[in-house]
Amino acid sequence: MTTTPPDIRTASADEVVASLTLDEKASLTSGASFWYTKPVERAGIPAIMLTDGPHGVRKQREGGDHLGIADSVPATCFPPAVALGSSFDPELLERVGAALGDESLAENVAVLLGPGINIKRSPFCGRNFEYLSEDPLVSGVLGTALVRGLQSRGVGASLKHFAANNQEADRLRVSADVDPRPLREIYLRGFQRVVEDAQPWTVMCSYNRLNGVWTSEDPWLLTSVLRDEWGFEGLVVSDWGAVNDRVTGVVAGLDLEMPSSGGRTDAQLVAAVQAGTIAEASIDTAARRVVDLVQKSVAGARAGHSFDVDTHHALAREAAERSVVLLKNEGPVLPLAPEASVAVIGEFARTPRFQGAGSSLINPTRVDDALAAITELGGDVAFAPGFTIDGSDDTGLATAAAEVAAQHDVAVVFLGLPAELESEGFDRDDIELPANQIAALEAVAAANPNTVVVLSNGGVVRLGDVDRLAPAIVEGWLLGQAGGSAIANVLFGVVNPAGRLAETIPVRIEDTPAFLDFPGENSHVRYGEGLFVGYRWYDARSMAVHFPFGHGLSYTEFAYSDLSVAATDAGLTARLTVTNTGERAGREVVQAYVGLPGSSIVRAQRELTGFQTVDLDAGESRVVEIAIRRADLAYWDVRVDDWTVEGGEYRVEIGASSRDIRATETVAVAGDDVKLTFGRNSSIGEILADPTAGAALKAAFSGADGPAKALTESPEMIRMMASFPIGRLATFPGMGIDDDSLDALLAAANAR
Amino acid sequence: MTTTPPDIRTASADEVVASLTLDEKASLTSGASFWYTKPVERAGIPAIMLTDGPHGVRKQREGGDHLGIADSVPATCFPPAVALGSSFDPELLERVGAALGDESLAENVAVLLGPGINIKRSPFCGRNFEYLSEDPLVSGVLGTALVRGLQSRGVGASLKHFAANNQEADRLRVSADVDPRPLREIYLRGFQRVVEDAQPWTVMCSYNRLNGVWTSEDPWLLTSVLRDEWGFEGLVVSDWGAVNDRVTGVVAGLDLEMPSSGGRTDAQLVAAVQAGTIAEASIDTAARRVVDLVQKSVAGARAGHSFDVDTHHALAREAAERSVVLLKNEGPVLPLAPEASVAVIGEFARTPRFQGAGSSLINPTRVDDALAAITELGGDVAFAPGFTIDGSDDTGLATAAAEVAAQHDVAVVFLGLPAELESEGFDRDDIELPANQIAALEAVAAANPNTVVVLSNGGVVRLGDVDRLAPAIVEGWLLGQAGGSAIANVLFGVVNPAGRLAETIPVRIEDTPAFLDFPGENSHVRYGEGLFVGYRWYDARSMAVHFPFGHGLSYTEFAYSDLSVAATDAGLTARLTVTNTGERAGREVVQAYVGLPGSSIVRAQRELTGFQTVDLDAGESRVVEIAIRRADLAYWDVRVDDWTVEGGEYRVEIGASSRDIRATETVAVAGDDVKLTFGRNSSIGEILADPTAGAALKAAFSGADGPAKALTESPEMIRMMASFPIGRLATFPGMGIDDDSLDALLAAANAR
Repeated sequence: MTTTPPDIRTASADEVVASLTLDEKASLTSGASFWYTKPVERAGIPAIMLTDGPHGVRKQREGGDHLGIADSVPATCFPPAVALGSSFDPELLERVGAALGDESLAENVAVLLGPGINIKRSPFCGRNFEYLSEDPLVSGVLGTALVRGLQSRGVGASLKHFAANNQEADRLRVSADVDPRPLREIYLRGFQRVVEDAQPWTVMCSYNRLNGVWTSEDPWLLTSVLRDEWGFEGLVVSDWGAVNDRVTGVVAGLDLEMPSSGGRTDAQLVAAVQAGTIAEASIDTAARRVVDLVQKSVAGARAGHSFDVDTHHALAREAAERSVVLLKNEGPVLPLAPEASVAVIGEFARTPRFQGAGSSLINPTRVDDALAAITELGGDVAFAPGFTIDGSDDTGLATAAAEVAAQHDVAVVFLGLPAELESEGFDRDDIELPANQIAALEAVAAANPNTVVVLSNGGVVRLGDVDRLAPAIVEGWLLGQAGGSAIANVLFGVVNPAGRLAETIPVRIEDTPAFLDFPGENSHVRYGEGLFVGYRWYDARSMAVHFPFGHGLSYTEFAYSDLSVAATDAGLTARLTVTNTGERAGREVVQAYVGLPGSSIVRAQRELTGFQTVDLDAGESRVVEIAIRRADLAYWDVRVDDWTVEGGEYRVEIGASSRDIRATETVAVAGDDVKLTFGRNSSIGEILADPTAGAALKAAFSGADGPAKALTESPEMIRMMASFPIGRLATFPGMGIDDDSLDALLAAANAR
Repeated sequence: MTTTPPDIRTASADEVVASLTLDEKASLTSGASFWYTKPVERAGIPAIMLTDGPHGVRKQREGGDHLGIADSVPATCFPPAVALGSSFDPELLERVGAALGDESLAENVAVLLGPGINIKRSPFCGRNFEYLSEDPLVSGVLGTALVRGLQSRGVGASLKHFAANNQEADRLRVSADVDPRPLREIYLRGFQRVVEDAQPWTVMCSYNRLNGVWTSEDPWLLTSVLRDEWGFEGLVVSDWGAVNDRVTGVVAGLDLEMPSSGGRTDAQLVAAVQAGTIAEASIDTAARRVVDLVQKSVAGARAGHSFDVDTHHALAREAAERSVVLLKNEGPVLPLAPEASVAVIGEFARTPRFQGAGSSLINPTRVDDALAAITELGGDVAFAPGFTIDGSDDTGLATAAAEVAAQHDVAVVFLGLPAELESEGFDRDDIELPANQIAALEAVAAANPNTVVVLSNGGVVRLGDVDRLAPAIVEGWLLGQAGGSAIANVLFGVVNPAGRLAETIPVRIEDTPAFLDFPGENSHVRYGEGLFVGYRWYDARSMAVHFPFGHGLSYTEFAYSDLSVAATDAGLTARLTVTNTGERAGREVVQAYVGLPGSSIVRAQRELTGFQTVDLDAGESRVVEIAIRRADLAYWDVRVDDWTVEGGEYRVEIGASSRDIRATETVAVAGDDVKLTFGRNSSIGEILADPTAGAALKAAFSGADGPAKALTESPEMIRMMASFPIGRLATFPGMGIDDDSLDALLAAANAR
């Protein structure tokens, strides 16, 4: 039974779906090939292309290997997320997103697979270079900006990897075993923000399991949380190969299987409907979302669209410049003087490492190297490789580099992680820089104390040796195709660096929160550190870090004054004056952390709840306002399975980093009215703490004999019995409470 | 319908139960009063008494308050478990157990409620003074010895609190959320050892829940694990008031509810049987175990039994002397010379703190104080209180103490935790000694550098200030009623101290494993540190500790030599020579730690697997042999839900503490043959690692086209695909594998 299909450009998705056969509907919900959905030609539904991102368009050429190893069409390689996260600059990410949208349109790509906003739980995670931060606010705010920019061009985002995909080891099976509060407050919070603020066209479910359930077939995750709670209106696509059981997945809320399963799982769906195992409505829903996505894509497509390669390269450079983090600058050694005498050391200066490996590997339109850019800006510039990146056959390179360093005023040493250590698909085993690089740095620093280290790395590295040897350290992360010129501009002060660490640099890997349970074993990984991820851990345990979350230096200085904090229905507003007290223009990233001393729940000492960049000329002052959402004050309240704002005197700390707090204010916040339901295992203290229920308890007990009566009168008795489950009163003889009076009491306590 | 009951002294418990009515059987399975079971007079079944221990007999007088606050019959107060644990001496604990048995017999007590062997998960736990160690081997070996001694007198033990009761906060409700490996390898391992080695007459279930299930009604815990796996033959009694739902509990394996529920829950049981909700056999089983316990008790009872108070006091002193840990002895300041000039400082010297509060509070037969004992052994001895224990009104006491200290050769300063800080029922908020005591120590140490600190504390305290101020530190824990004279004997070298730390003394509370999730909230506590409890944590994270697990000094020195380790079917045997190289007789506690470098599973760096005390005269050598059970090399293998010994080259470290390793050997151990069952989510690497299954995979794939075939040939392909769930091969087109061939392969792989 078929009907004449309506025009998909004008019909509603429901109307289109209503015109399709069961086979057609099922066929729509899995891929035709590695990158394309299936068309329904009879109904005028075209195939659309989804392709890898997220920091560039990785569109594979026909006949490519699909594994990201080679051969995609040239595209601008913007800085990967590790760098963009350090910009703390949503406006920048929105522009990058828009540019990515333009490149997608030019290649007829309907959906670019990104951004990835998983939390950096451990420095070991091999894919950290694709993620933004250890903090959900940074991940959420910047992820929102990227999605907005991309979708502003009529191209869909795919928010990934949903959820709790924080490692590569055993990623196709591992169950992330996470308790409710860290799951909600850390691992899902960024996703919630992006969904609510930017409505990505698609969300990509991850490979792993979450608390034992495949994310690709978890109705709680894909429907209850994502759609019912957060209001997601788009489509859920599987990560490539993430489908375990297709039928279960579709019922749970998985709309599109990718890549192709050759029609095998479509047939399973049809058979399940025919057998009455699942309702056809489940397939209708998935098909409707695919049709809706196709409709958006058709509406967004721009035939013959093109982009300007030079303009995008310039944007990639601007983004890279905004992402560089100046970790240390004693002397100050930096910025270098124009025409400075510079020894450029390190193979990475001429063979830049600017992105990570795997599905995000971009074939760049061009690549800047730092050596050329420094040569252009400097005076007497010489180069020595210092080491080989693969560690082979570098006898004499360090010595030769030291000789070059000795002959120049400053040595700039480019160190980094070899590309083969960082990729999608596996995690790192340590966070060390290669020994041959440290040896080269030792030699150079001995020859020239004015040594600057520039780092290229996707995941954090231990910096003890570098810090000991070099008075200045520039964290360049992976900066995309224009990173080389961006670094040169920072070194010479053409750009005043303003990047901030979106992840803590620890003193030792043994200090890191997940050190003992990452990556788990036997397909389970326990998130044993709970809420205390990243800076939350180091603060809570009063531990030293090498460079704290939020840290980043400038070539100028900023002063903070006149902080005031006001509470509104929407949350808090922090207002302060920031003054550039130095001698050159610069940008400050003002950070607002919130804590609640004396909280009734377990809490981090401080949590980032807002940040704001401000550009200031030398001597200039501006008022900076940071809006803190009330939702970002809330904790996940397991008593009611909902977000709750606890009432109290909140401490608002304004800092230049998480450990450089410049001003503090407290502000009273009214708490949410939480309605608990009491039962026999509610404690006496819990019941007494509730005005209505407490009054009911006192009324019920006032006539009792013995200890129960004392609960209405004696503070000592109340204190001693506060943790006692009220139901147990009926199990002890002589308490004056029996089952019937207990039931009556609980009914009265719950009658609100 | 009743039958003529048999004589319970000669009949089997089954025969006795068969003669009882349903009402009688149900009535047997809950208490008659706070301390007594119910008799069935018609059947000649007497009531028996269970009463609090474990380091003394706390038999309340008639009309007492039942809360341990006052008024029990006098009994010898032996050192609490915190001290006994430090003895590392099972022979001593067996003698203490026998003495406790004699005192129980004298008071017609059938079951003494102890020992408590819960793991010290956090220093905060208010009841740590009642527990032996942070290590399950120490807890298990010493717990076994105490049970053996007690039961050798015909008195039953009650191994408690089963299980995962590691805090007092919310203890009546909290769910200890523990993963399988730490649960088995840390929290249940000591219980398993005591059950298997000593068959305690009873096991007491705890108040709390374990992974969401009340331990009082957990069939997995009370029956599958305790009886089916471990072979427990005794009775499970509830902690007093731990019953949540009686009917569920009985079915799960809870045999005896204590104290009395006034017949209310017995009626529930009868009603459930009559309604057909539960089988009468469940009640028969519980009643049979109660009858069996009564029979043992009747057989063990000794009318008119008495004990010698002086002899028991002497044993209490010997036990205390064996439990004192000499933490530090610079100079050496200790031992004091006979007739030494000693300033005794600190209220605890004359007002000893020797036990904790709560259900274990003993009314001692007498109490030694250290001041009197020192006065007897020393020459010019003077006393100054230095501070008040409650911190009130001690103006001038510190100054006065300093003056006394200045007038003597040595100052011995007795510091400790006030009694009200340590009790059953609540946890500590910090691990600090009171500030007024530290102030007194500051004053004394400034007046006399020869300052010795003696500590009285049930839980560990931070020792940074004490260590800074005093060249010698004696950790006295809580030493029971003879602690005062024991301390004096140690100070003067009448006894050469040999106690060892059974728990780590951390540098800061923030360093401790459970700092961030103890005690949980909303009735859940996540054991986020997993396996890494106590020294396992500090070693795995390479952290400094103040005094390590196993540490304890002597007045002599020991040398270790000639270590050899042999593997046998029973485990390992370590043999070495220990020589007393000093000038006085002493006792060494030789510790054997085992690790498996390169293990395929997550493991602690080293785990205690055996220890042996050896007494040596000055200059004497002896061969010490430590037997390490094969079971103690095993880990809990979640793949098969069983213990597995991994094959490999084990490292055996012999140490005087966990951080004073004196000799190391490696030994090859053959692994257990683990039979895995493979399924669609088994990874390719797992299947290839099994000889039979791997061969089946290669055979199945050798004829396939494409990537599947490469899995039989290409090492690169095998490595890349090792973590791939084999079932996914059938979901990708072109792999050459379909559902049918996959099923055939798995059948072949599992055909072993």
